[in-house]
Amino acid sequence: MDKSERYERGLAKLKEIYGEQAQTLVSALEDVTPDLSCYVVEFAFEDIHCRTGLNLKSREIATVSALTALGTAPSQLRAHIHAALNVGCTQEEVVEVILQMALYAGFPATINGMQAAKEVFTERKATK
Amino acid sequence: MDKSERYERGLAKLKEIYGEQAQTLVSALEDVTPDLSCYVVEFAFEDIHCRTGLNLKSREIATVSALTALGTAPSQLRAHIHAALNVGCTQEEVVEVILQMALYAGFPATINGMQAAKEVFTERKATK
Amino acid sequence: MDKSERYERGLAKLKEIYGEQAQTLVSALEDVTPDLSCYVVEFAFEDIHCRTGLNLKSREIATVSALTALGTAPSQLRAHIHAALNVGCTQEEVVEVILQMALYAGFPATINGMQAAKEVFTERKATK
Amino acid sequence: MDKSERYERGLAKLKEIYGEQAQTLVSALEDVTPDLSCYVVEFAFEDIHCRTGLNLKSREIATVSALTALGTAPSQLRAHIHAALNVGCTQEEVVEVILQMALYAGFPATINGMQAAKEVFTERKATK
Amino acid sequence: MDKSERYERGLAKLKEIYGEQAQTLVSALEDVTPDLSCYVVEFAFEDIHCRTGLNLKSREIATVSALTALGTAPSQLRAHIHAALNVGCTQEEVVEVILQMALYAGFPATINGMQAAKEVFTERKATK
Amino acid sequence: MDKSERYERGLAKLKEIYGEQAQTLVSALEDVTPDLSCYVVEFAFEDIHCRTGLNLKSREIATVSALTALGTAPSQLRAHIHAALNVGCTQEEVVEVILQMALYAGFPATINGMQAAKEVFTERKATK
Repeated sequence: MDKSERYERGLAKLKEIYGEQAQTLVSALEDVTPDLSCYVVEFAFEDIHCRTGLNLKSREIATVSALTALGTAPSQLRAHIHAALNVGCTQEEVVEVILQMALYAGFPATINGMQAAKEVFTERKATK
Repeated sequence: MDKSERYERGLAKLKEIYGEQAQTLVSALEDVTPDLSCYVVEFAFEDIHCRTGLNLKSREIATVSALTALGTAPSQLRAHIHAALNVGCTQEEVVEVILQMALYAGFPATINGMQAAKEVFTERKATK
Repeated sequence: MDKSERYERGLAKLKEIYGEQAQTLVSALEDVTPDLSCYVVEFAFEDIHCRTGLNLKSREIATVSALTALGTAPSQLRAHIHAALNVGCTQEEVVEVILQMALYAGFPATINGMQAAKEVFTERKATK
Repeated sequence: MDKSERYERGLAKLKEIYGEQAQTLVSALEDVTPDLSCYVVEFAFEDIHCRTGLNLKSREIATVSALTALGTAPSQLRAHIHAALNVGCTQEEVVEVILQMALYAGFPATINGMQAAKEVFTERKATK
Repeated sequence: MDKSERYERGLAKLKEIYGEQAQTLVSALEDVTPDLSCYVVEFAFEDIHCRTGLNLKSREIATVSALTALGTAPSQLRAHIHAALNVGCTQEEVVEVILQMALYAGFPATINGMQAAKEVFTERKATK
Repeated sequence: MDKSERYERGLAKLKEIYGEQAQTLVSALEDVTPDLSCYVVEFAFEDIHCRTGLNLKSREIATVSALTALGTAPSQLRAHIHAALNVGCTQEEVVEVILQMALYAGFPATINGMQAAKEVFTERKATK
């Protein structure tokens, strides 16, 4: 597979996950550094997210829980809560994933994650 | 629900997840501090893990990913890789969850998580 | 002790620590997720903060230092600086706890903690 | 105050906290890098630990809680559990500080901290 | 070397690194806590940054990469991106250091670091 | 560039950095998971380390400082201290990079990093 093919497949996966938001996300990254945008599309969305062996819903559950636990990337957490809902998680499932992190990363991490979830839920309601 | 009921329900959930290992885990914690053991059974396994809204398999995916990303609790990561396999994850799914963390926590976190997974897989093969 | 008793005792402890701010804190959490609010009151403030063996002042010193060192929960750090002052810490003691974190978590963690402290001190002066 | 005076005062504080272990700790650091040993004595133990405004017991409570929450320095955590006991904390107080971190850094951090505490308690019993 | 000499040498190093911004940085810290400002000048900028054995450019590369990877101090990261550029790093080198952190701390850390870099680059362009 | 070309270029870069250790490192990763080994070679060593704009010595300074500050990957830290020395850092420069992290991540991170460095220095002396 040549490089442009990786990019195209990664972009298609990104669109499958983020729908109309995909282009905005890529443009935002390109605006920061074009090469970084390229690595995110090719490595994150083609190499990793196109792998079989774990469905997209489980991949987003893994990502939402990790970003909640780390607590250092609130903007990316919100993006992945959107992604989780886009690929089939219910709002209840997202809430449970974040709540479970109280056990493994403490209450402040969970409270901040819940506030991110609430913002995403409100935003999606407004744009419907 | 009174306190002893919470403990009994938590212990039952712990046994559902860990099978024969459950008693060893509780005894190890009790040996460190009895009260801590009690909170783990009641709060972690009754209050949180008995909740509906997210199945046990997804809960363990969330925990394995968070502990891989944090990288500070290798012993608990191994316990939760066992738990994930006990509640229905395939070895391939565990590997994919850990691999995905390369994107959100970097390669060292993923490499250390993979070594934990390999140890667990080897141990389970040996005890079969 | 039944569940509602745990809640009532936890809420009483929360009011002992936060005074008039207690209801605002609980309402803010309830607004995010009612269950999370419940766990914070019951597990954090009844199970843990009602324990004997460590006085409330030492508990808040422990929390302010940990949140300063972790650096991922600025809003909770400010709440616990309020709590520390409410249960008998002087402003000087809070400053010393945060300063000490330079040794264990580095200067950026301490500088950000000091700015949180300064905001809290200013806010309390204004509302007196 | 000239540099050697800072070193002497820092070393005296270190001995006040660690007793007979002080020389072992300094030698271990000197063995790694003499300059680092010097900064630890001068900056950590003279500049910071000789400050008034917070007693040594509270300083060690702050340090034990932060190192438990961070979870990245098990050897230093054990040293500071020794220090906490040396300057007047009871074993019960140390246990409570570590237990409280379950709320702010999660159960794995607390379980690992408790195991460190248990090792220190056993070691001190053996050497009495 | 007496204490005031350490302060003067630290301040001179700070001015060598930050130019006209140095006084603003010191004043901002003094405004928070005078003692903290003093330790930053004496310990961080005299004791450590005046050491030989590593040039200032490499020191700032080390700091920018660590703060990007930790992800908990965005304001200090921006200050050190300024510092890196002041002591001879090109914008391209700063971008490469931050990009490399994708490997060791994950994409969210790198994306947030890149946004910090972009803000600094824009600010410097505007003030030229 | 097709995929196998990326792999070959990545492997060549890995050999440039690690010399005879390169094959051992790749084999160790392949033993854990072949795909992970592949991503490390292609993404870490081709996509990122083959980039121009930052020399290898500065790349290793960035990595040693970040891994010291994070404190969660001691084995990878030792590998990158080897790498830093292989691409032209002196032992003194490595020591300075790790020492500097006391400012940004605290003394425990620096002490643990220094012990890793000492182990690497001893090992290299022994195998000469």
